[in-house]
Amino acid sequence: MISIEEIQSHIITAVEKVKESNPMAGSITNSVTINFVANTQIAVGGSAAMVYLPDEGEFLAKAGGATYINMGTLFPVYEETLPLVVKTLQKAGKPWVLDPVAIGIGSLRTHMLHLFKAYKPSIIKGNASEIIALAGLWELEGGVGESQVRGVDSTNQVEEAKAAAISLARWTDGAVIVSGEVDLVTDGNVVASSYGGSHFLGKLTGGGCALGGAAAVYLTSASPFIAAMTAVSAFNVAGGRAEKQTDAPASFQIEFLDQLYKATPEDIAHTHFKMEEI
Amino acid sequence: MISIEEIQSHIITAVEKVKESNPMAGSITNSVTINFVANTQIAVGGSAAMVYLPDEGEFLAKAGGATYINMGTLFPVYEETLPLVVKTLQKAGKPWVLDPVAIGIGSLRTHMLHLFKAYKPSIIKGNASEIIALAGLWELEGGVGESQVRGVDSTNQVEEAKAAAISLARWTDGAVIVSGEVDLVTDGNVVASSYGGSHFLGKLTGGGCALGGAAAVYLTSASPFIAAMTAVSAFNVAGGRAEKQTDAPASFQIEFLDQLYKATPEDIAHTHFKMEEI
Amino acid sequence: MISIEEIQSHIITAVEKVKESNPMAGSITNSVTINFVANTQIAVGGSAAMVYLPDEGEFLAKAGGATYINMGTLFPVYEETLPLVVKTLQKAGKPWVLDPVAIGIGSLRTHMLHLFKAYKPSIIKGNASEIIALAGLWELEGGVGESQVRGVDSTNQVEEAKAAAISLARWTDGAVIVSGEVDLVTDGNVVASSYGGSHFLGKLTGGGCALGGAAAVYLTSASPFIAAMTAVSAFNVAGGRAEKQTDAPASFQIEFLDQLYKATPEDIAHTHFKMEEI
Repeated sequence: MISIEEIQSHIITAVEKVKESNPMAGSITNSVTINFVANTQIAVGGSAAMVYLPDEGEFLAKAGGATYINMGTLFPVYEETLPLVVKTLQKAGKPWVLDPVAIGIGSLRTHMLHLFKAYKPSIIKGNASEIIALAGLWELEGGVGESQVRGVDSTNQVEEAKAAAISLARWTDGAVIVSGEVDLVTDGNVVASSYGGSHFLGKLTGGGCALGGAAAVYLTSASPFIAAMTAVSAFNVAGGRAEKQTDAPASFQIEFLDQLYKATPEDIAHTHFKMEEI
Repeated sequence: MISIEEIQSHIITAVEKVKESNPMAGSITNSVTINFVANTQIAVGGSAAMVYLPDEGEFLAKAGGATYINMGTLFPVYEETLPLVVKTLQKAGKPWVLDPVAIGIGSLRTHMLHLFKAYKPSIIKGNASEIIALAGLWELEGGVGESQVRGVDSTNQVEEAKAAAISLARWTDGAVIVSGEVDLVTDGNVVASSYGGSHFLGKLTGGGCALGGAAAVYLTSASPFIAAMTAVSAFNVAGGRAEKQTDAPASFQIEFLDQLYKATPEDIAHTHFKMEEI
Repeated sequence: MISIEEIQSHIITAVEKVKESNPMAGSITNSVTINFVANTQIAVGGSAAMVYLPDEGEFLAKAGGATYINMGTLFPVYEETLPLVVKTLQKAGKPWVLDPVAIGIGSLRTHMLHLFKAYKPSIIKGNASEIIALAGLWELEGGVGESQVRGVDSTNQVEEAKAAAISLARWTDGAVIVSGEVDLVTDGNVVASSYGGSHFLGKLTGGGCALGGAAAVYLTSASPFIAAMTAVSAFNVAGGRAEKQTDAPASFQIEFLDQLYKATPEDIAHTHFKMEEI
């Protein structure tokens, strides 16, 4: 099993590479939290670009080091945009992050999430209910057929999604993040539990989307598992620090972005996490 | 006439129920202030979900305790989404809030607002010009045929919209909020004037939308009149407190959301208001 | 050549007129930074309204004192909306600001930017790469055929875009802003270099969009060159002050909007700038 020291060393390299190279990660993401996602990607050292149209998505998929696809607020044109983008990513061998927000709501989302199974996202990020529902939709172990998702919120605990996360990671040969009080990251062989963060990230919209956007930035410069670990660790250190400075969600969000910007590679690498072999 | 003490008691119950049950209120709302609306809904204790597509709107209308429809930035697909959503709400007997932003601009908005007359929103929230214009569009007393709305701003005083607000409330058998320096809330039988708030809410975008979104959250747990009174009171207490801490609109907005999050049921119930029988 | 004192006097008049008359400047702008643009327009004293649909854009073009068109996140309906809006603006003799964000990405953007050549925007605002690329697209001197834009970021220095900016200003008989460490403003006869601002404006999304939105507000009350100088000067004074109060981008953004709101006509007029005759 990969050691904690090795992971920490890889995290330091990923953060440094991003801060030095300012890599572009394009996004197709929801309109509720799009600004928070962009500012998060910039805060960690990346460059953000968001689009809706098919040929623009195709362009970003080719031009960016990685792409972030968040299923939040779908527009009709996504019926053309999303298939073209994932095909382009696959053809170009570019990594991408899937955030299956609101899985279970509406026919277009369900249709697209079915399609994505064959295109194997490099990182899947969701709350426990979303991860269980996606494994269910893809008929993998640990999933359930019927979604327990309520709107955009989770009704399950992270631990309940462990089997689903492992199945998804094995299917995609990538990594899966289950966000929650303790975040779980797995590549299908090992499971990391990452500690820290803040309950305030659940008292504002977009904490999960921002995490997915940050993961896409790190994915330009690291393997899926290391990119996922780096994003989760960065959020846990920044969240923990911001919570100490603030006592309510809106000021927390500002402080959180500031702390994300200030966090050093070492800060991020030394966030507390535990490893477990499967 | 319902007494001030009874209203205060109902407000306390509404705030407590929302904080305990974290109710979901879905929204179809504009892209300018969508993030502020979501964070407001979460700050008061609700759960937010925003969509654009017809079947997603239908899903949220059924799944949510109430729905918020804001006419701000319309997309072409709203021609299908909005009628389906209001029909679903009516069939399911679910309450909803209408925010007729930018009434008078464009044919789709006018067409939809005409249609909504028959579906009787539980709460209508607008500035004075919007309320007068909507009563005019629906050919009710107190309205004017030609809109005095300039873009999204009011050119009328709250008091001028009183007759229109009463007509609308009687038509819908619901409640109407006219937001302004002193906010007016009516159920068609009584008129409450709610004091407090901050002039800074007019120096940033989305104060009105956020109020409508909060009203939808309270509407999951109270009657239209109490939900409207609760939302207005919460905004007036949080606005007043935030203004004391800040001297400009952007820091005010952060402090306002924080104060909204911190306000207790008693704080909200004891905001200053006056009652008048019609 | 117009003297520095004359420019300062015109800037004071523009800022005062805006603060007194609260002019409306409608926008068709991207969904990533739409809230920041609106709050910026309000902070400087204007009134904001954002739309997507053709007849709504037509309405705002007629009703507003000026219009802001930002090419950021295009929707399919823009194929109808944008031509109608620029034709309406031309017919009504209303000024407008063009922000050619992401020039070079996608066929609709390219097609619209080609079309706009004949409609001569009053102010063009872009980073160095965007200005060079637009001059190239319009086959003007100083432009290059192939875009050097990477997503939404500039890969060129402001000075490299000087010839392109002058060509564009001469073509439109308007003004051009090249934003960067030192901002360049030209009307084709003189070139102003404006100092101040903050590196943090490049560490968050929307600084450029907000500048374009502010320029549209000032364009309701001043010539293109003075409106451009006023917006750039306001941003440089507010940016410089905000940077002294903060040490990271998110808190900077809040402080920046607050400082923009607080800046007096004299503050804005006396921002450091140099003039050069061509």
